[in-house]
Amino acid sequence: MTEPLVGILGGMGPAATAAFYAKLVARTPAIRDQDHLRVAIWADPTVPDRVAALLDGSTDPYPLMLAGARHLQSLGVTIAAMPCHTAHAFLPRLIADTGLPFVDMVAETARVLRQRDARRVALLGTRGTLACGIYQERLQDFDLAIPDEQAQQSVDEAIAAVKRGAPAEGARHLSAALPDVPLTVLACTELPLAADRLTGSPGELLDPTDLLADALITECR
Amino acid sequence: MTEPLVGILGGMGPAATAAFYAKLVARTPAIRDQDHLRVAIWADPTVPDRVAALLDGSTDPYPLMLAGARHLQSLGVTIAAMPCHTAHAFLPRLIADTGLPFVDMVAETARVLRQRDARRVALLGTRGTLACGIYQERLQDFDLAIPDEQAQQSVDEAIAAVKRGAPAEGARHLSAALPDVPLTVLACTELPLAADRLTGSPGELLDPTDLLADALITECR
Repeated sequence: MTEPLVGILGGMGPAATAAFYAKLVARTPAIRDQDHLRVAIWADPTVPDRVAALLDGSTDPYPLMLAGARHLQSLGVTIAAMPCHTAHAFLPRLIADTGLPFVDMVAETARVLRQRDARRVALLGTRGTLACGIYQERLQDFDLAIPDEQAQQSVDEAIAAVKRGAPAEGARHLSAALPDVPLTVLACTELPLAADRLTGSPGELLDPTDLLADALITECR
Repeated sequence: MTEPLVGILGGMGPAATAAFYAKLVARTPAIRDQDHLRVAIWADPTVPDRVAALLDGSTDPYPLMLAGARHLQSLGVTIAAMPCHTAHAFLPRLIADTGLPFVDMVAETARVLRQRDARRVALLGTRGTLACGIYQERLQDFDLAIPDEQAQQSVDEAIAAVKRGAPAEGARHLSAALPDVPLTVLACTELPLAADRLTGSPGELLDPTDLLADALITECR
């Protein structure tokens, strides 16, 4: 049997990729290095803006995403993951073009939400993620709370703050965006980095990158 | 000009590699994703124990280290780094066999120490790092404090705790190993993860992975 090799198509953004890799390591049952998963990461932060691509087509991130996936493929990865929600709009095309077995973080999140009682769920993400509807189409029977324009501006600010290395500032913006809903999905990989710095007690925050990491670990064991 | 591509030969151990990548991102001046460095990481935690290789030759990590370096080379990395001090004992051979331009973390640490007034410096690392003398040979004119057997046992415990995902426990062991010396070099990539959880105020702790990250950023700009 081939030893599993996890491929992470990252860099979108880079801090989120580093946090995702740390999470994958922390959630792997291990007492020594050799118990951990082999991992290859291709992190190209120069991939053009995914949000603009989805909102007005002014950028095209796909060629560099495809190139990254091909790099991972050349290394022999046996399972792949992409810790960026917005980029998941391109995942079907990426899978079709490469045949790489990606774990779909959005599908995994929908699967886990379905196992719970919650019907009313808040969804925070980039304008691109919300506009392309990848979450809404999988959660049609849920009562989804989507931010209004003012709250979305706070979400945008929270994401931008993490991307410029200021997660504590991101937490202040995230705090302003959190709705009064018991369960909120942090559907942008920068948001959990801001959430780590939240003070006070928000409702439950679901971090889909936790689910993505656990799915990879399960697939590899 | 070719866009720089940083290669990280990691997994030794994996948590330290994730922390190193996060550090590289955090220390890069950037306000958006596209300002960050392109990074490829090969993290194979199944590389056999480096310490045993250096102490009694009972393991041989070199073939998998070389394979990993070749993987990074196949991706076109323009500069490489290996966030593991003990593995630096194999760095000259790795450079000779691959021609990859690695930044030498040990040499970088010696260079920075030389710019400072400190002559008395404590060195904490694995038994392998201390036995192979890669630091001592570069710091011959320094008054180096090396742990006695009891302190080294605490260092070993601190490293093992981080490797099994228990950095707070690692901090307790590290605390017991810290000598009464103004400047201590944390010459094992697991130790800064334990040091992050230290309470109280130890003397100054120098983390060579900070220097390695800064050297990569400088080289790429």
